[in-house]
Amino acid sequence: MDYEVESSRIAYDGELSRVRVDRVRMPDGEVVNREIVEHPNAVAVVPVEEDGQVVLLRQYRHPFGQAALEIPAGKLDSDGEVPDEAVRRELAEEVGLGAGRLTELVTFHNSSGWTDETTTVYLATGLDPVDAPAGFAAHAEEADMEVVRMPLADVVERARRGELTDAKTLIGVLLAAERLRGRAAH
Amino acid sequence: MDYEVESSRIAYDGELSRVRVDRVRMPDGEVVNREIVEHPNAVAVVPVEEDGQVVLLRQYRHPFGQAALEIPAGKLDSDGEVPDEAVRRELAEEVGLGAGRLTELVTFHNSSGWTDETTTVYLATGLDPVDAPAGFAAHAEEADMEVVRMPLADVVERARRGELTDAKTLIGVLLAAERLRGRAAH
Repeated sequence: MDYEVESSRIAYDGELSRVRVDRVRMPDGEVVNREIVEHPNAVAVVPVEEDGQVVLLRQYRHPFGQAALEIPAGKLDSDGEVPDEAVRRELAEEVGLGAGRLTELVTFHNSSGWTDETTTVYLATGLDPVDAPAGFAAHAEEADMEVVRMPLADVVERARRGELTDAKTLIGVLLAAERLRGRAAH
Repeated sequence: MDYEVESSRIAYDGELSRVRVDRVRMPDGEVVNREIVEHPNAVAVVPVEEDGQVVLLRQYRHPFGQAALEIPAGKLDSDGEVPDEAVRRELAEEVGLGAGRLTELVTFHNSSGWTDETTTVYLATGLDPVDAPAGFAAHAEEADMEVVRMPLADVVERARRGELTDAKTLIGVLLAAERLRGRAAH
């Protein structure tokens, strides 16, 4: 496939989001504008405790004006943080846990048609309490987050009923269930 | 929870994306800016044929400069189209199928921290060939799409191995598998 970018301009440069407009020559020769929202990549993690409980957060989400049940997650720090470090930081900051074992489940595109954001999701097991990192100050939304523990089978059942509405949470929980089913079977 | 929007402005108004910046008074009294990317909502559909094959598309995605394996999907038309109509239109346009039965699986938030986009995902069964809608002209990317049929169990296995990278496809396929497993068990 041949989609040549003839020119490119930044149409908006905000605090976190940046809009890029590319002029693209399509395979049939037509030249079209493509609007892409550039956004920092994210990590997310499904923490599963030894007794099969998943550690979730109930968290206010401003774009929807309501709270949602989600797995711990966050953006990569802009100073070159790698996903593996970021996920250990988020686990400590948001739910006060350290992971003996991190398994990468997938790196997915949140909305592949219009933004370059990707989210890397991990399964965390062998969990132990840790202190929040030195210098960590919770944002207002984080101060308001509520930790919710729930058996993995119950979280999957909520997903099956359409009651979980957050992409990274659905993907993480359903893939974690597939993996742990796999482990149990072998 | 009390997150009062004190003021709001449109910082960018593009072809599909619009950036809104809200000044929000947090529960602790602090006032912060929140940048939200407004984007049209989408529908997506997992078409499962009678013999258990899923109908997928291999499609070029400009934000990543590469092709991805995805379920059929599209944005809601701006003239007030409802998800149920949109998904029947996409099924006909993209893979030439009509559905005897549409089951809504979930309406999810693609990236709940920073955009208001939601995607409603359906399971489609009882499939029959139909003509593309009258007046339908494929865009260049659509002309370049390739239809790929694959057994549902193989698609789930690809998801399990982290090889599917599109959010709506992962969520649709994993939830369809949960539902169909449920139907088989009862």
